[in-house]
Amino acid sequence: MNILRRGRLSVEPDRDINNFTSSMEADKRIFDADIEVDKAHVIMLREQNIIRADDCSAILSGLDKLKKEGILALDTSYEDVHIALEARLIELVGEDTGGRMHSARSRNDEVAACIRLSLRAELLDLMEEVHDLVSAMVNTAAKHHETIMPGYTHTQHAQPTTLAHHLLAHAGAYLRDLERLKGAYERTNRNPLGAAAFASTGFPVNRKRTAELLGFDSVIENSMDAVSTRDFMIESLGCYSNLMTDLSRLAEELILWSSSEFDFIELDDKYSSTSSIMPQKKNPDIAELMRAKTGTVDGALMSVLTICKALPYSYDRDLQEATPHLWRATDNVRSSVRMAQGMISTMKIKKENLESALDKGFMTATELADTIVRTTGIPFRTAHHIVGSCARSGKIPTLSDIDDLSLNILNEKLSDRGLSEKDILEALDPMGNIKKRSVQGGPAPKETKRQVTVIGRKLAGFGEGIKLIRKKITEASVKLEKASLQYS
Amino acid sequence: MNILRRGRLSVEPDRDINNFTSSMEADKRIFDADIEVDKAHVIMLREQNIIRADDCSAILSGLDKLKKEGILALDTSYEDVHIALEARLIELVGEDTGGRMHSARSRNDEVAACIRLSLRAELLDLMEEVHDLVSAMVNTAAKHHETIMPGYTHTQHAQPTTLAHHLLAHAGAYLRDLERLKGAYERTNRNPLGAAAFASTGFPVNRKRTAELLGFDSVIENSMDAVSTRDFMIESLGCYSNLMTDLSRLAEELILWSSSEFDFIELDDKYSSTSSIMPQKKNPDIAELMRAKTGTVDGALMSVLTICKALPYSYDRDLQEATPHLWRATDNVRSSVRMAQGMISTMKIKKENLESALDKGFMTATELADTIVRTTGIPFRTAHHIVGSCARSGKIPTLSDIDDLSLNILNEKLSDRGLSEKDILEALDPMGNIKKRSVQGGPAPKETKRQVTVIGRKLAGFGEGIKLIRKKITEASVKLEKASLQYS
Amino acid sequence: MNILRRGRLSVEPDRDINNFTSSMEADKRIFDADIEVDKAHVIMLREQNIIRADDCSAILSGLDKLKKEGILALDTSYEDVHIALEARLIELVGEDTGGRMHSARSRNDEVAACIRLSLRAELLDLMEEVHDLVSAMVNTAAKHHETIMPGYTHTQHAQPTTLAHHLLAHAGAYLRDLERLKGAYERTNRNPLGAAAFASTGFPVNRKRTAELLGFDSVIENSMDAVSTRDFMIESLGCYSNLMTDLSRLAEELILWSSSEFDFIELDDKYSSTSSIMPQKKNPDIAELMRAKTGTVDGALMSVLTICKALPYSYDRDLQEATPHLWRATDNVRSSVRMAQGMISTMKIKKENLESALDKGFMTATELADTIVRTTGIPFRTAHHIVGSCARSGKIPTLSDIDDLSLNILNEKLSDRGLSEKDILEALDPMGNIKKRSVQGGPAPKETKRQVTVIGRKLAGFGEGIKLIRKKITEASVKLEKASLQYS
Amino acid sequence: MNILRRGRLSVEPDRDINNFTSSMEADKRIFDADIEVDKAHVIMLREQNIIRADDCSAILSGLDKLKKEGILALDTSYEDVHIALEARLIELVGEDTGGRMHSARSRNDEVAACIRLSLRAELLDLMEEVHDLVSAMVNTAAKHHETIMPGYTHTQHAQPTTLAHHLLAHAGAYLRDLERLKGAYERTNRNPLGAAAFASTGFPVNRKRTAELLGFDSVIENSMDAVSTRDFMIESLGCYSNLMTDLSRLAEELILWSSSEFDFIELDDKYSSTSSIMPQKKNPDIAELMRAKTGTVDGALMSVLTICKALPYSYDRDLQEATPHLWRATDNVRSSVRMAQGMISTMKIKKENLESALDKGFMTATELADTIVRTTGIPFRTAHHIVGSCARSGKIPTLSDIDDLSLNILNEKLSDRGLSEKDILEALDPMGNIKKRSVQGGPAPKETKRQVTVIGRKLAGFGEGIKLIRKKITEASVKLEKASLQYS
Repeated sequence: MNILRRGRLSVEPDRDINNFTSSMEADKRIFDADIEVDKAHVIMLREQNIIRADDCSAILSGLDKLKKEGILALDTSYEDVHIALEARLIELVGEDTGGRMHSARSRNDEVAACIRLSLRAELLDLMEEVHDLVSAMVNTAAKHHETIMPGYTHTQHAQPTTLAHHLLAHAGAYLRDLERLKGAYERTNRNPLGAAAFASTGFPVNRKRTAELLGFDSVIENSMDAVSTRDFMIESLGCYSNLMTDLSRLAEELILWSSSEFDFIELDDKYSSTSSIMPQKKNPDIAELMRAKTGTVDGALMSVLTICKALPYSYDRDLQEATPHLWRATDNVRSSVRMAQGMISTMKIKKENLESALDKGFMTATELADTIVRTTGIPFRTAHHIVGSCARSGKIPTLSDIDDLSLNILNEKLSDRGLSEKDILEALDPMGNIKKRSVQGGPAPKETKRQVTVIGRKLAGFGEGIKLIRKKITEASVKLEKASLQYS
Repeated sequence: MNILRRGRLSVEPDRDINNFTSSMEADKRIFDADIEVDKAHVIMLREQNIIRADDCSAILSGLDKLKKEGILALDTSYEDVHIALEARLIELVGEDTGGRMHSARSRNDEVAACIRLSLRAELLDLMEEVHDLVSAMVNTAAKHHETIMPGYTHTQHAQPTTLAHHLLAHAGAYLRDLERLKGAYERTNRNPLGAAAFASTGFPVNRKRTAELLGFDSVIENSMDAVSTRDFMIESLGCYSNLMTDLSRLAEELILWSSSEFDFIELDDKYSSTSSIMPQKKNPDIAELMRAKTGTVDGALMSVLTICKALPYSYDRDLQEATPHLWRATDNVRSSVRMAQGMISTMKIKKENLESALDKGFMTATELADTIVRTTGIPFRTAHHIVGSCARSGKIPTLSDIDDLSLNILNEKLSDRGLSEKDILEALDPMGNIKKRSVQGGPAPKETKRQVTVIGRKLAGFGEGIKLIRKKITEASVKLEKASLQYS
Repeated sequence: MNILRRGRLSVEPDRDINNFTSSMEADKRIFDADIEVDKAHVIMLREQNIIRADDCSAILSGLDKLKKEGILALDTSYEDVHIALEARLIELVGEDTGGRMHSARSRNDEVAACIRLSLRAELLDLMEEVHDLVSAMVNTAAKHHETIMPGYTHTQHAQPTTLAHHLLAHAGAYLRDLERLKGAYERTNRNPLGAAAFASTGFPVNRKRTAELLGFDSVIENSMDAVSTRDFMIESLGCYSNLMTDLSRLAEELILWSSSEFDFIELDDKYSSTSSIMPQKKNPDIAELMRAKTGTVDGALMSVLTICKALPYSYDRDLQEATPHLWRATDNVRSSVRMAQGMISTMKIKKENLESALDKGFMTATELADTIVRTTGIPFRTAHHIVGSCARSGKIPTLSDIDDLSLNILNEKLSDRGLSEKDILEALDPMGNIKKRSVQGGPAPKETKRQVTVIGRKLAGFGEGIKLIRKKITEASVKLEKASLQYS
Repeated sequence: MNILRRGRLSVEPDRDINNFTSSMEADKRIFDADIEVDKAHVIMLREQNIIRADDCSAILSGLDKLKKEGILALDTSYEDVHIALEARLIELVGEDTGGRMHSARSRNDEVAACIRLSLRAELLDLMEEVHDLVSAMVNTAAKHHETIMPGYTHTQHAQPTTLAHHLLAHAGAYLRDLERLKGAYERTNRNPLGAAAFASTGFPVNRKRTAELLGFDSVIENSMDAVSTRDFMIESLGCYSNLMTDLSRLAEELILWSSSEFDFIELDDKYSSTSSIMPQKKNPDIAELMRAKTGTVDGALMSVLTICKALPYSYDRDLQEATPHLWRATDNVRSSVRMAQGMISTMKIKKENLESALDKGFMTATELADTIVRTTGIPFRTAHHIVGSCARSGKIPTLSDIDDLSLNILNEKLSDRGLSEKDILEALDPMGNIKKRSVQGGPAPKETKRQVTVIGRKLAGFGEGIKLIRKKITEASVKLEKASLQYS
């Protein structure tokens, strides 16, 4: 009979109830982590003389065997991987030995440790993927410092800019996503083990030692806090939602830019689908799904927030329901980042269309107003009035158009204050326009080149940081393996 | 090569991209519906002379074979079940025949029809399950018309009531959930077929005929609307969230009532778990998970809303991402309703504890104030003042306590205005208290008995309604089968 | 001292606490409703002989005075409008009379009644506004049965359609919003009065009579249910989110269509803004805000769901926090509907641009494939292959292009199977294309004209329904006024 | 006429449209910040010789006057505070001078700067308030190292713990909230000014100088990124939701502990309300509202996420709709933290009830199992089985009970393996039990005392950090004031 329930409970749940309570499906994600947690715990128990050397050795061998068998060998009638694993261990090495593994702990600290280890790995991979996405953005930008295009506000033509400037705006956002993910990582990689059910344990466990063996950066002090909190999940999900929001904005642009109306880019065939009925269609399905997955991830965040709301301390079974949302969101975010990187890297950019789009919408109006301010000394707000009145008429103004309007508004001609036809022509030239915008962060080619260098440096810094973290984890892993061999 | 992509696109996506776009996992839910939709479509094509009799016959036989093979026989490298199914059909009967099935339609109307058929079935099952939950509530209530217990506001003892009254409050809420689900059903069971990609088709299709063969109640008129809208999903999810909110409130009570502090009920062992470390524990895990699943369902609603936001007409691939949330939510809601029904039906009610809980909290204070109003004619607000002052002292008042306070507040003794010790004792008697509350909807046993009858009647009405709907669907199903045989 | 707290509690909260608990700000929305509820309650108390004729008369006069004074005359140090109103009444008519108004009720049933009455009025206004939006859509559509334009899937040119067909798709969606709002209305307009705190009351109140005087359609039976539930709020908010999702899709199109790239429409200046810096800008700010308000409303729904989750019965103060979200959402939805109606009614449609947009994207490919099927008898999937291969080359095919491809794919020329140059030209003509799509719901002008008639009929039905409801409410209002005069 | 619209647009919006677009209500929050931003911008323009000394001086004086007049002096028919402020400035100093203030900038960078400055101030206040809440928690904990109480899992009695241990669990969570808020602060306090509409400007602005004058830590490089992103809002809202989730869990416990059933604490009268009908009631309304406000804040997060989803770069008017949610959430979080601090500091703790609650639920079962493991050497899982079987019978076991069960399960008596009656009694003593749990993070008094010291140290560190930040901001403020005087 069920090794957990045989004592306290007399009746077994039926299959419908079992399906309702079982976390076995989601636990696939933590099976490997669970074996590591078991090993670290058992090694520590041995070192603290809580279990005997021979029991320790037998359990470690059993765990190796279990790992090889994989999760599919477990009895899925158990409600979670932890107890199924323990039950299988008992089958392998007997209850007198296997029954000692769970000394001085509970599934409450165990599952928290497993989730943290698994999430840690995902966050590291994700950070690398975001790093690669920024790289792809920057590499593409570096080829388009002089590719002029309309810059938009309100989805309206606003001022001329370059594709480099536009892509680097996205890159800037993803860099902040990296900063946030790093914070989430730091608060994830902390050790809850030793908290047991919440009250810690009367056995003399060593929480720092399990932290060391598993590569945790520190110990979560208060044992009730350690098993009750899921704030690290909410933080990761918050970072995901922020990142997906950023990706959704890129997706929207890729979709618009692929339309017949914009026609700025052509996505690679790999990142496109066609229609079952309309044979001519080439659809940006990947970008659309990436946009949609924002909703999937936001909903996962909302689920976990709602689940955790108002739960009294310490552990409640509600927390089990939170975890699958985390994994689902993680998968969606990670694959979306990879798709974005792939689309950016392979898309064909239609330079000539980007450039010819500048003909519409009188985008140089701001520069014209600024030029008027600089040459005539009238205030900006008045220049805005004059140029706005030109725009209403729908045509690009000449000096005489401007003089007419200014006579009407200011009672004098701007040509009398020094405005020349040449000033106007210069103001109306898009590339001239852009080159003037060379202040920090602006679209002028020499400035976007500087931005590429700066981002490159930041990115290298992030890359180094990730490598250091991986190194630390590998070292812990080696320690665990060594200790495991030593006590086997 | 891929029958869809071979024309327009030159490169195949890699596995990572395929995983990103594929809906095959979620499409398991609509496989059966898809076969039915295919049959109805093909029969209609035949009847309208759009395809030849021999092609129709071969396709219908192919579809029967496909149905037997099941979804697992399909090539999962296709992006969805519709095209995988068509590809397999072409394998079975050749492109010259199988390639005609998709005439006059698109996956856009096809998938909408499949989702609607599948959701229709789920909603019907769910309505039956809610019906059964209300039954269980009412049956339990019917045994406890005289089981007195504290009624709460603010989780504080407020006034005495009965368990019947309390359970019937929940029953009332679930009945409204049934009303809403019926509305959602009606707006789901409408036919989008014939809309094709969104522009309908130049072939002379008969949309009323496919509606008839599939048991749809009506046709969604405008063909662009038919493929673009997912409002029926949002409506169902909205109903689910409302229902789960109701269930979460029941869950909270089951959890509190199972605590050592309340100790009002004992859940059946089947609906309980124990601890891996604390051998004495009997935990209300099912109720906790039911509470948590509210968050899961609310998040699904939020996902679908966010996904559908600001999508330009007509079909966008984003809509594919919405569907799995619907199925996930559906499963969680349906199982939660079953669990609630099971817990209510099997829980042990500790009458004596419910009753003895009335000793705490001076719950008869309202009736005492009302009694004072009735016997002495002072205003309610003044009686409230006097009785509130008694309560502050923490003890149940006697006539002389009340007289002291009223002297202070009103300058006269209430006993001089006719209040007697007997009046007070009657007011302080919980069952007497309850019996006085016999107005419509109140807790008096004769009134809760009336409520049981009323709910029973309503419930029978809902039951009849569901049966009628099932009958109609079965009749359509028979028609489809007959026509299918006739043309095979 | 505070008439509520003076009995039970010894200390007053400070201003920070008062601000935290007070609902006075949101209660402005229910002040008028509260006076009506008070009147109906007092009249019923009188009719049931629970209060005396002279007290009833004095209270009714006091209430009339209070109504004239308005909410601003109330003491805002009270935590809500109900108790502030009672306190002011007591000031006006003395505690011996005013203190009797709250007999046989509680703020719990009172506030539920006030919210339901106020929401009822908002829902009616909203239904009328949606009705007017559909009218505007249909009226505009009626002028554009022959205005051809690209139909989109995946924001890609897909097949030709007409503006009438496109606008009627939106109209169809809004009609279903109306259906849902009607359901929400029905479940809102039910009477909770008489439930008192949750346990009803020992006074012989007449719940049907207050329902009659206030125009409620029925009584919410179980008294605990009546004060505990906020499902009617969630239902309304669910309808709002669905409606806003529909509006956000329209908003997205208005924004895209206003862009330089699409250039299909020009929004009226009233519905546009300009830039503080870019003088040429004309921005679709109203449409953008309408799109954004979807998020506002979805968040309000999520707030109320999260607030109501897992609240034990009966009333909890948490429910107070839910109400402001309802009003905020209501205001945003109603104004958005009006803006949509205004934009649709006043926008300038650039027919020539809609038409010329058809030149891009080979949108007639589906009809070409269908034509091939009809003239040559090859299967649709094969025709799709051939036409898709044409599209890959990027040019509109001639008969000889098609023959070349079909030789390659089918080993025969389609011209040998009867395909002529004339067939191809016909298939490639957009208006010809559209006219062929005359099945139910299709874009053919004669069919969209029929749709206009059908929608007009449905709309008239909704209009009638709303009028009937308003009539019923007015009748109740007259009854209340008469009874009020009679007992004053 | 409107200084913005007079150029480009011919018609004024009506009041309904104006209400829809206006952000004046929410802009009250940024009025002071806007004046500071204006000053810093104007000073920089002067220093860069973009405007003349006399214009600079006149504008600065005008701004001082505007500040004194306050926001109520502004013309509310303008759509936002920025343009209303500029219009009023022009009234005061004439267009020829006032019209120059907006040179080289746009409302897009201006509003982003204003929001960041205002949010910065709120985050600092909030961090202090959370700091004070942790202090209150720790101070209360420090008085209750030996106040024993039931520890819960699943709202069931689990193992004995102390109130200190329980409160420190919450303190640990709030400390992590502080860590996250610090990250949010860092990413908020960056300068978007100089980005203008998104394309920066042709004027030679100095973005580092405005950063210095306003106390921003750095400049947001890419100018399109600077005006497009609202990720800092989403990050703050994410931190808020995490914090509110933590507070909601505390609120739930305060509510449960105030119930008649738990009766562990009595909240101060200030933090309680009573009933309008039930005179004996003392309700934990503040805690309930705090719990509910979690939903309010989660909804605000969801609103902003939904609003920002899929917006194409750069600025879209949708972003305006996001800001009010931020302020609403900020107010709710800050007041909730203060309420929590107040409730914890003033609540009366009923030690005797906490202690006597330990009698229920056989909470020492885990220690009994552990004791059996230690004294007899049998595995934990077997001891769990034996003790679980005891628990099922519902009574606290004696040595002979245990021997009977172990004979049955193990075929030997545990007394034969060394278990004594004394061992059992020790295991069953709650305080003995707790004292044994002295590992890092456990409930043993000497360990919770250590935890108090550790948290005190961390808290002092946070306090120092906040002070340093405030000092830096004050220094910037002094610089701005000095420069302002110098150029006036």
